[in-house]
Amino acid sequence: MQHTPRQAGTPCVPIDLGERSYPILIGSGLLADPSAFDAAPAGTDALVVTNTTVAPLYGERLAAALAPRHRRVHQLALPDGEQHKDWATLNLIFDALLTHGADRKTVLYALGGGVVGDMTGFAAACYMRGVPFVQVPTTLLAQVDSSVGGKTAINHPLGKNMIGAFYQPLAVVCDLDVLKTLPARELSAGLAEVIKYGPIADMAFFDWIESHIDALRALDADALAHAVRRSCEIKAAVVGQDEREAGLRAILNFGHTFGHAIEAGLGYGAWLHGEGVAAGMVMAAHLSCELGGVDAAFVQRLATLIERAGLPVRGAVIDAHDNAGRYLELMRVDKKAEAGEIRFVLIDGPGRAVVRAAPDALVRAVIDRCCA
Amino acid sequence: MQHTPRQAGTPCVPIDLGERSYPILIGSGLLADPSAFDAAPAGTDALVVTNTTVAPLYGERLAAALAPRHRRVHQLALPDGEQHKDWATLNLIFDALLTHGADRKTVLYALGGGVVGDMTGFAAACYMRGVPFVQVPTTLLAQVDSSVGGKTAINHPLGKNMIGAFYQPLAVVCDLDVLKTLPARELSAGLAEVIKYGPIADMAFFDWIESHIDALRALDADALAHAVRRSCEIKAAVVGQDEREAGLRAILNFGHTFGHAIEAGLGYGAWLHGEGVAAGMVMAAHLSCELGGVDAAFVQRLATLIERAGLPVRGAVIDAHDNAGRYLELMRVDKKAEAGEIRFVLIDGPGRAVVRAAPDALVRAVIDRCCA
Repeated sequence: MQHTPRQAGTPCVPIDLGERSYPILIGSGLLADPSAFDAAPAGTDALVVTNTTVAPLYGERLAAALAPRHRRVHQLALPDGEQHKDWATLNLIFDALLTHGADRKTVLYALGGGVVGDMTGFAAACYMRGVPFVQVPTTLLAQVDSSVGGKTAINHPLGKNMIGAFYQPLAVVCDLDVLKTLPARELSAGLAEVIKYGPIADMAFFDWIESHIDALRALDADALAHAVRRSCEIKAAVVGQDEREAGLRAILNFGHTFGHAIEAGLGYGAWLHGEGVAAGMVMAAHLSCELGGVDAAFVQRLATLIERAGLPVRGAVIDAHDNAGRYLELMRVDKKAEAGEIRFVLIDGPGRAVVRAAPDALVRAVIDRCCA
Repeated sequence: MQHTPRQAGTPCVPIDLGERSYPILIGSGLLADPSAFDAAPAGTDALVVTNTTVAPLYGERLAAALAPRHRRVHQLALPDGEQHKDWATLNLIFDALLTHGADRKTVLYALGGGVVGDMTGFAAACYMRGVPFVQVPTTLLAQVDSSVGGKTAINHPLGKNMIGAFYQPLAVVCDLDVLKTLPARELSAGLAEVIKYGPIADMAFFDWIESHIDALRALDADALAHAVRRSCEIKAAVVGQDEREAGLRAILNFGHTFGHAIEAGLGYGAWLHGEGVAAGMVMAAHLSCELGGVDAAFVQRLATLIERAGLPVRGAVIDAHDNAGRYLELMRVDKKAEAGEIRFVLIDGPGRAVVRAAPDALVRAVIDRCCA
């Protein structure tokens, strides 16, 4: 394995959370660069948690970079897919830690996409009541969203990400090279979370994405670097103001309320998370339009970009008899809900999000209109 | 149900943890007093988590006290016993929360002993990444130790309390009246944790326990009140200095390293936690003596008090072929261990504890000498 030395100019987006602050490193060749992992303590044991898809691609490369830093480097490959983001799979991490005699100083490395990151982070939060961990995201979605900000969780059959913790990593290491092996469907799913940042926070970035969507889908290195960096900057700013989602942070869930209902309604793994978010953003934009936050042209513009990103613009039919009713039922267990009232992230003018309730009848009308 | 108004003079031990500070209320009749729960938000839903033993004794009394405070009060009775402190039982709490449509403002009440408190606290830490909870301990052990300080966890087949979180309650409400229905064996188990505070922190308290051990076993109200209050004061002082067990807090684990090995070695539930701690303290005292921290007279004095409390002074034989080897194996997965080296809480002079390693040969000799 070739060791690519890290350039002094590797972009670093800091997340400012007081004593829990950490850097997001973004660049090429980081996975093979021991110094990219300087934020983690050295000399202890390490466990790399990955999945059966990523392990053969990047497992050895990361293990080689970590070997000089750690006493022993173990690896665990979980089954791949959102349908495995459950307690049984999480327990495989605890089994491995205990089997290897891991102690409170053992460092966990999450090498994979959002599922691996969420589960490894939650395992790190819980094992012996907390051990250090590092995010090494290998999907675009994980690099621009899920690996940043310390949300960790597993799914419950009755709701997505219902069981988890706010637990910050020591660092997020985004090697852009790994995106070259990402399947096109996964790349598109990641673009959904990139696009998300436009309507909620930065319409200039939205303009840029519109101009570069083809370059992004073609894996243009400069375009990907900018998309990852700007996404992380926006997320860092939001999380820095509201780590535990007391308020503002909820705007990052634009499209997720509808999207989670699709994922849960079809069974986890049928649609990718980013696909649910994509269709969910169009639905949330329609609802925003009904409530006067944006006009129909804005909704159309968002839908066009989402379609150009290779993503669904219409929601799934999750119940043949009462589709809207099933959506509402699933959305009522959303974490933003209060006293059974669903709270939506809506656009209140381009680049500005609000969290609010909406009349059931209006939500039903949007669902009926938006589902294929 | 008679409503006993809380006296203005109800003792309150504060736990000082900055924004996570909370009161420990200690008194008679608190369980039936709505004002005892003023630290918890009102107007939301509540779930009382208890067990099948405690539910028929105190479930209704607490529900009646909470009824004026909460919109709805649900109750869940878990199976009773340390052997149920596992993921499957924890999941019953998540199932109940989701079935009842609990949101982020739902308050959990842990009504029971250490197992109920540890599991409810961990569920509160994880459900939607954190909901508020209140400890309502109904055993002496929970009142003097486990409900205070925010340690929550479940067991893993390979180690006790291996999966958990530091997560503080909004309040701890210790109603001394409930101790009247506590089985004698459970009362003795709680006395083990009371006695613990002497050797590690306060020999004047140890003297007092020696003078009042018969009164405590006879459920003398004044003696129990003092024992609970002084235990909570000592624990509050230690936790206030080291919430997440970076150092000092580990002294509260005196007797626990050997004790956990007994519990795990015999199978959870065979010995009560306090019984394991009792025999473990004698073993740790012997080890302290071997290392020069205390003399033989001190060890004998501690053993005598433990015996008078109705507790075992000799460790269990957990492996017929290699008892000491099995202890060592189990103790190596203790959370205080580092790089496979077991770290013991030892007495370094009466009233003063240290955490340190000890030669395996010496530990083996102590185990051989101390096990029945």
